[in-house]
Amino acid sequence: MDSAIPSHLRCPRSRQRRVPDDYVPPYPSFVARHAQRVDRVVMAYFGAQSQDRDRAALEEAVQQLARRFAGERGPAHWDRSRYTDEAGFETVVCAAYWDHPASHDAWFAAQGCDWTRVARPGLGTFTEVLRPHVERYETLFSAPDRAEGIAVLAEAMSDVVMEHAYWGGARDRIPASQTDAMAPRGEPELLRDGALVTVRGHEHLCLIRSGQDWSDTEADERRMYLDDVEPVLRAGMDFLRDDGRAIGCFANRYAVVETADGRPTEKSYGMSWWRSLAALERWAESHPTHVAIFGAAMKYLSTLGPAAKLKLYHEVTVARADEQLFEYLGCHDRTGLLRAG
Amino acid sequence: MDSAIPSHLRCPRSRQRRVPDDYVPPYPSFVARHAQRVDRVVMAYFGAQSQDRDRAALEEAVQQLARRFAGERGPAHWDRSRYTDEAGFETVVCAAYWDHPASHDAWFAAQGCDWTRVARPGLGTFTEVLRPHVERYETLFSAPDRAEGIAVLAEAMSDVVMEHAYWGGARDRIPASQTDAMAPRGEPELLRDGALVTVRGHEHLCLIRSGQDWSDTEADERRMYLDDVEPVLRAGMDFLRDDGRAIGCFANRYAVVETADGRPTEKSYGMSWWRSLAALERWAESHPTHVAIFGAAMKYLSTLGPAAKLKLYHEVTVARADEQLFEYLGCHDRTGLLRAG
Repeated sequence: MDSAIPSHLRCPRSRQRRVPDDYVPPYPSFVARHAQRVDRVVMAYFGAQSQDRDRAALEEAVQQLARRFAGERGPAHWDRSRYTDEAGFETVVCAAYWDHPASHDAWFAAQGCDWTRVARPGLGTFTEVLRPHVERYETLFSAPDRAEGIAVLAEAMSDVVMEHAYWGGARDRIPASQTDAMAPRGEPELLRDGALVTVRGHEHLCLIRSGQDWSDTEADERRMYLDDVEPVLRAGMDFLRDDGRAIGCFANRYAVVETADGRPTEKSYGMSWWRSLAALERWAESHPTHVAIFGAAMKYLSTLGPAAKLKLYHEVTVARADEQLFEYLGCHDRTGLLRAG
Repeated sequence: MDSAIPSHLRCPRSRQRRVPDDYVPPYPSFVARHAQRVDRVVMAYFGAQSQDRDRAALEEAVQQLARRFAGERGPAHWDRSRYTDEAGFETVVCAAYWDHPASHDAWFAAQGCDWTRVARPGLGTFTEVLRPHVERYETLFSAPDRAEGIAVLAEAMSDVVMEHAYWGGARDRIPASQTDAMAPRGEPELLRDGALVTVRGHEHLCLIRSGQDWSDTEADERRMYLDDVEPVLRAGMDFLRDDGRAIGCFANRYAVVETADGRPTEKSYGMSWWRSLAALERWAESHPTHVAIFGAAMKYLSTLGPAAKLKLYHEVTVARADEQLFEYLGCHDRTGLLRAG
């Protein structure tokens, strides 16, 4: 069994892990292992929203973006997904990943920054980018053979790791937690320039992308996921989207992953922006909506055991203020971090 | 809002609390505040078990004990309760509390030690005593006006405390956690002397008594507790009793509190002995049986809100090896700590 924190990022602790050294998790999970040369990654979300649910306009924007992704220094991996947002706007979001920040920067300057600089009739667009040092995020996978998100860029999956299956595991997997409480400082600040709104995030803003893939499930398992788990998950996602502000969740999107040409797949993810990792921890471990999700998932997984074909993963980042970029062009005022101001 | 750790027991930390300084729990809870002169308490469980479910013999033993409790230097508070144990034996257990160890010691030498020294036909008896320093246990109450257990001896209840409603709260309420991981060391050791078995506990053995009082509930709330919560609680208690050993639970008793003359009340408690606080934490936060209990309780409490009349409390102790006494006379070999050897 391995530590989620790779050996080159371990350091003398001033803060303790939550579990004792002889802790053994009750089931296996895995984390992404980047090549040691990688010291910073980029996670960029490019969204387009349409009040009129204009699928053609959304598709045109996304296809243009896809062509740009394919260009020089484009992302090493990206995916697209779709959701209806807090204001009822249909939104398509592309999540793109780089593990070489200079490549991202060059691509972004040449191909990416237009996304929120050139208005598109009938659409709002947004760009939300984190560029965390590898000490400031963690991943977790229920299976070692199905990378998603930033993990697609990893060199490998880890062996079974120790720091999971307890509350506080995400914090303990983030290398910075060895010495840093990652407490939030400051408040997001909105800067308006015509139709463009830029948000300056605060120190230790937190992002989670947490996904599920039910494409391999069959018969009873599929029914159990779709009937017993998914509605409970959706209720929790709706709560965060509509009422999360009071508990420190700025925005939540529950998105269905799509094929390159916009057809739904059997994968979804929730992605949410939080005031702090602590706020996310509190919701996850004690809010009725997540306790219900956790209970449904536990029941599902304990019924099926190792035979379960459902794949789960997440990535959690706690970003420094200077590792964040948020731009919104022509978006309604409850979009993403605009609610944080 | 106050800290669960009273000011005279606060010290410079080498270990962190799990929540940030600005954490605000989502609902109120309270802890017992002992007089500052109290530096050690005694929690003693005197049990009698009958394979034949011989209520008359059990009652005679308990009444004799009750008379002794009423004698000089007897407990400041005690209660009696009844359960059927892992072997199907009917058991009555009296939990007795002192906040002056010298009084307990004098009483025990004169009146208490007989309990497991003089055989009673048809009965097994056991004595399980912890005498923790006040730094080594914590209490928690959902209401400030209904003390139970050791808290009956307290000078007062606290104001609303900060360290609760998150996983790890019990640890954070124990003053020793400021500087001590309270990791277990050693193994329990059984010493046989004829029908008497003494168990030497190990360092940082853990005890929880966790109770519920539904006597004030009415109509829908009562139905909801009895139909939706209690069966789930019972299933968890049965799991710990029958299968807890693999996850570090040596013994569990789910007991109904009785009146002085042995009639059931509308109060119950679970009491369990654990290898360590960490093992208890892991069960509580991630085992399907407790996740189900927690989910049922959350649903109940979030449906009823502050109107809920159900009262909840617990006390958790992590004891040094020299703060423990376990004696079993004529008991079956799965009784209490006998399973730990």
